[in-house]
Amino acid sequence: MTDAATSFRGRVARYDVLVPPPADGSTRARLGRLELPHGVVDTPQFMPVGTNATVKALDPLDIEATGASIILANTYHLYLRPGHERIARLGGLHRFMSWDRPILTDSGGFQVVSLGDLRVVDDDGVTFRSHLDGSVHRFTPEHSIAVQEALGADVAVAFDQPVTPSSPLDVVADATARTHRWAERSLAAHGRGDQALFGIVQGGLDPNLRASSAAFIAGLGFDGICIGGLAGDETPAQREAAIDVAVSALAKDPRPRYLMGLGSPADLLEAVDRGVDLFDSVLPARVARNGTLWVPGGKLNLRNSRFLDDAAPVQEGCPCPLCTRFSRAYLAHLFRARELLAYRLATCHNLTFTLDFMLRIRSALRAGTFPASLPELRLHAGPLSGREAAEKSA
Amino acid sequence: MTDAATSFRGRVARYDVLVPPPADGSTRARLGRLELPHGVVDTPQFMPVGTNATVKALDPLDIEATGASIILANTYHLYLRPGHERIARLGGLHRFMSWDRPILTDSGGFQVVSLGDLRVVDDDGVTFRSHLDGSVHRFTPEHSIAVQEALGADVAVAFDQPVTPSSPLDVVADATARTHRWAERSLAAHGRGDQALFGIVQGGLDPNLRASSAAFIAGLGFDGICIGGLAGDETPAQREAAIDVAVSALAKDPRPRYLMGLGSPADLLEAVDRGVDLFDSVLPARVARNGTLWVPGGKLNLRNSRFLDDAAPVQEGCPCPLCTRFSRAYLAHLFRARELLAYRLATCHNLTFTLDFMLRIRSALRAGTFPASLPELRLHAGPLSGREAAEKSA
Repeated sequence: MTDAATSFRGRVARYDVLVPPPADGSTRARLGRLELPHGVVDTPQFMPVGTNATVKALDPLDIEATGASIILANTYHLYLRPGHERIARLGGLHRFMSWDRPILTDSGGFQVVSLGDLRVVDDDGVTFRSHLDGSVHRFTPEHSIAVQEALGADVAVAFDQPVTPSSPLDVVADATARTHRWAERSLAAHGRGDQALFGIVQGGLDPNLRASSAAFIAGLGFDGICIGGLAGDETPAQREAAIDVAVSALAKDPRPRYLMGLGSPADLLEAVDRGVDLFDSVLPARVARNGTLWVPGGKLNLRNSRFLDDAAPVQEGCPCPLCTRFSRAYLAHLFRARELLAYRLATCHNLTFTLDFMLRIRSALRAGTFPASLPELRLHAGPLSGREAAEKSA
Repeated sequence: MTDAATSFRGRVARYDVLVPPPADGSTRARLGRLELPHGVVDTPQFMPVGTNATVKALDPLDIEATGASIILANTYHLYLRPGHERIARLGGLHRFMSWDRPILTDSGGFQVVSLGDLRVVDDDGVTFRSHLDGSVHRFTPEHSIAVQEALGADVAVAFDQPVTPSSPLDVVADATARTHRWAERSLAAHGRGDQALFGIVQGGLDPNLRASSAAFIAGLGFDGICIGGLAGDETPAQREAAIDVAVSALAKDPRPRYLMGLGSPADLLEAVDRGVDLFDSVLPARVARNGTLWVPGGKLNLRNSRFLDDAAPVQEGCPCPLCTRFSRAYLAHLFRARELLAYRLATCHNLTFTLDFMLRIRSALRAGTFPASLPELRLHAGPLSGREAAEKSA
């Protein structure tokens, strides 16, 4: 553990690779431990998303019970409503939402370009219209950092310009170069002493752009490296190739690697195998609210009438509040009656399933049996990638 | 406690009046203890409503934390969806919804005439259309009892024909006479040995009809007496007069008296003072979901923008999950963002407030200070009657 390549000491964050990838190259997966101001995050790890300072349908005790140790909140949403300055006046995001464990805020870059109605990107920043009321706003790297400092999460993220993976090469190249300049400005603007700052690698699906972006971002003094611009319209093979390029460029870098936006267990497993440490996604919660419950090997659609008479729990042995106390029949009834309790119970389950899956991955890594356990873990994750899971439950 | 007039021993239910009304006539309020198969209900007591086998937005642990000891479920809704026979096959209502404390089911009579699209009442029963899909159904006293026996609550209720309080006298008289015949048929049809059966007094606002209905129902072998056909379009004074007539007719009757459908703290207090022991209403939960939070002396409308910067809890000292952990500012934000957590937290609070209010009433009754405490209890309840509370929060 004293090897410089398996340990990082930042101003605020510490990261230790407890079990590095084996020398035989059978996997790049690694077990790690990220120390942040509000607690420890064991990696590989998944972060539930609390867009509006609430993981939809759950309270903080529910989130804790899923096994989550860190959550993500969206800077764009909180900036617009209720406002970062208001949250700061109320004591910061942790106190506002009554969650005293680690939080990461994204930069707002993704939402600005994906939700904002107007999107004028110039070299200084992005002008956009609020998706709530059409009002015009402007984010620059400096402003994104100021907003995130006001929110006060454990980890802030540099402002970037993500583009759809399938974008033309010149669009990707332009956005990647701008992301690099904004990374430097984000770093220069950041001053909060109790908050880590992660940089974002872009580069789309082009190996050269992706590799040079990873090298550029790794050359700056961030506390962690985000891999952005994926989990979009790429195929799993394209995504895995892009991860391989980025992780290769970061192979000797001890800082945590965070692939933004990926959420199906099958996708998480492949990304872990390629060396990714951190993830976030709305997927487990979103499909849960649509009635899709994840179980070992697949999923159940609780809107299907065959569950109305099924006295079994959604998943035998699952410790979540749904499976320990209610039947599939009851949950199917709640969904049909559009009762609010359905959304909470289903979300508790899918997040518990996802976080338990990450725990299984970490156990295999700790035991040194991850490569051998891959077939079993793949069976447990089920066949669906995130895009399929989202489309089939929509 | 051995006085026959303060103790009732039914096949299934026991009711003891622990503190009878004082001889000076200053109040008819009384402290009681109702024993049912799934537990004890201290009276005066309020029953949260779990229409679709769920108190909207809450899970059973939330319900328990509000202080509730008994809940009401709606026979009409559960008959239509998911079906009483299905619930019976799944082990009954307690198991289905994972609530192992007392439950009361209503008869369906009120919903049949208030929600059903078609309502043909004849002497044998009521034919109606489902509000869900327009399908045609028929309830008779015998069928209502069969449905309630299948659901398996601790308390079933005789099938009645409620009418709006302001209905013409001949309509009220007709419905009251029919309710009496149906009460006898309900009693004859009921056979479940682990379920109590309550009868319903009707009679509208007419003193003679109300008094004779109370006397008639009290003459039958029920385990408790419901006072129906109120909590509608009557004024508080009309309601209180009708309660006085009914309770006078029941003054020497030891069985519990249950006024159906009343829910604002101010209304509950006046009814308790007039001798009512049990209540149910959707009001506390419904206004909560609209953003109206009950506090000592009044209410807060959390949709008002002034709460967005209010760091105080909704009610200082309240033990509910909202007040112990979140600010008014956070709840106001959740309501604006239409986040599901808002509905749960607000419901927890209003039910906690209501059940705590009943506890305050019982404490005063136990101490023998209820009449002297009435001014303070009225201040605590706030100025609003149920109709005002519902209209102002709509």
